[in-house]
Amino acid sequence: MSLALDSAAQDLLFREARTANTFTDEPVSEEQVQAIYDLVKFGPTAFNQTPLRIVLVRSAEARERLVAHMAEGNRAKTATAPLVAILAADNEFHEELPTLFPAFPQAKDVFFSERPARENAAGLNAALQAAYFIVGVRAAGLAAGPMTGFDGAAIQKEFLDGDHTPLMVVNIGKPGEDASYPRSPRLSYDEVVTTV
Amino acid sequence: MSLALDSAAQDLLFREARTANTFTDEPVSEEQVQAIYDLVKFGPTAFNQTPLRIVLVRSAEARERLVAHMAEGNRAKTATAPLVAILAADNEFHEELPTLFPAFPQAKDVFFSERPARENAAGLNAALQAAYFIVGVRAAGLAAGPMTGFDGAAIQKEFLDGDHTPLMVVNIGKPGEDASYPRSPRLSYDEVVTTV
Repeated sequence: MSLALDSAAQDLLFREARTANTFTDEPVSEEQVQAIYDLVKFGPTAFNQTPLRIVLVRSAEARERLVAHMAEGNRAKTATAPLVAILAADNEFHEELPTLFPAFPQAKDVFFSERPARENAAGLNAALQAAYFIVGVRAAGLAAGPMTGFDGAAIQKEFLDGDHTPLMVVNIGKPGEDASYPRSPRLSYDEVVTTV
Repeated sequence: MSLALDSAAQDLLFREARTANTFTDEPVSEEQVQAIYDLVKFGPTAFNQTPLRIVLVRSAEARERLVAHMAEGNRAKTATAPLVAILAADNEFHEELPTLFPAFPQAKDVFFSERPARENAAGLNAALQAAYFIVGVRAAGLAAGPMTGFDGAAIQKEFLDGDHTPLMVVNIGKPGEDASYPRSPRLSYDEVVTTV
C-alpha cells in the first residue's frame, strides 16, 4: 500500500530520520528555525490555540545555565549541540483565542475561563506542536534530539515564568559521529490497533 | 530559505492540509491505516516508549455508542466520517520497555515504577504520537479531523479500560463539501520564539 507522500519524504521525516545524540559543528541559523516554524505553525490544534512557545538557547551563558538543569545523561549532548530549544506550553494561550479562532471567539470564556482547563489543553496541544516541530526539524534536513530528562521547575524559573510549562528540550543540528543508537524495535500494528 | 523536504510534501502535510469536518463516502481501508501506522511508528518518543494505542470504530453499533459521548458540536461529523479512531495513552507502557528500549532495559524500574510518572510520560509521548498519526493520515492523502470535545470518562469506560486514557478522537476520510473553515491566522515567529 503506497502513501500519497513520496518515498524520499517518508525517509526524511520518519523511516531514516533518527534521534541524534552527537552533532557536527555546523551552526543552525535563525533563518532555518524560521523556515521550520513557518511550515509547522500550520499543524492543527484545538480551536487553533497553538500554545507552543520556543526559547532558543544561543548564548554561552544561557547554555551553561540550561546544562546545569539537565539530567546527567543529557548534559554532554545539550552542551555540544549547535542549537538547543526549550519547548514550553503557554497556559495563558486563551488571551489570543479571539484572534486565533475567529470562527468562535467565545471559546476563550466558554471553555477556558479556568486555569486547570487551560493547563490541560495547553499541555496536550503544545505536545502536538512539539511533534510537528520535530518533524519540521527533520524537514529542514537536520536531526532533532528531544529530551524530557531535566529539572522542570528550575528551567521554568530560569527561562520561563509561572504561566509557561516546559515540555521538552530539543538539541538540533547535523548528526555527528555515532550519533544514534541502533534503531529500537516498534510494536506491531496488531499490538497497537484494535477494531470495534 | 528552503527546506530539505520537497514543496509538494510540505503542502500535503502542512501548508494545504486542513482539518476536515465533512467527508465523502469513500471508505478508509485497513491497508491504509496499516500503511499510516507503519510510517509513523518510527516517530521518536522518550525511551521509545510508544504508548499510543488506537481503537478503530468500524461497526455501526460502536459508532453509535461513540457518537453519544461526543460533544454536541462533534456528533454529526463523528457520525458521518468514513472512519473514526480513538487515540489513547497506555499508562502501563512500561511492561514493554525492556523490549522496546534494549539500550537501557532498566528504565522500566528506574523511571517508571510509579503510576503517576507513567501517566505523565504516557500523556506527553502519546500526544507526540497522536501528532505523528495526524501527519501520517495526511501522508496517506486523507484528511484528519482531530477532536477533544467528548466525555472522556465515558469513552474510557466503554472502549478502553482503567489503564488507557483517551487523548482524542480523529475522523478520517476524503474531505467533503465545505469541509473546512477558512484558514485561521497563526502567531508570528516573533510572538512564539524568543532567544537567550
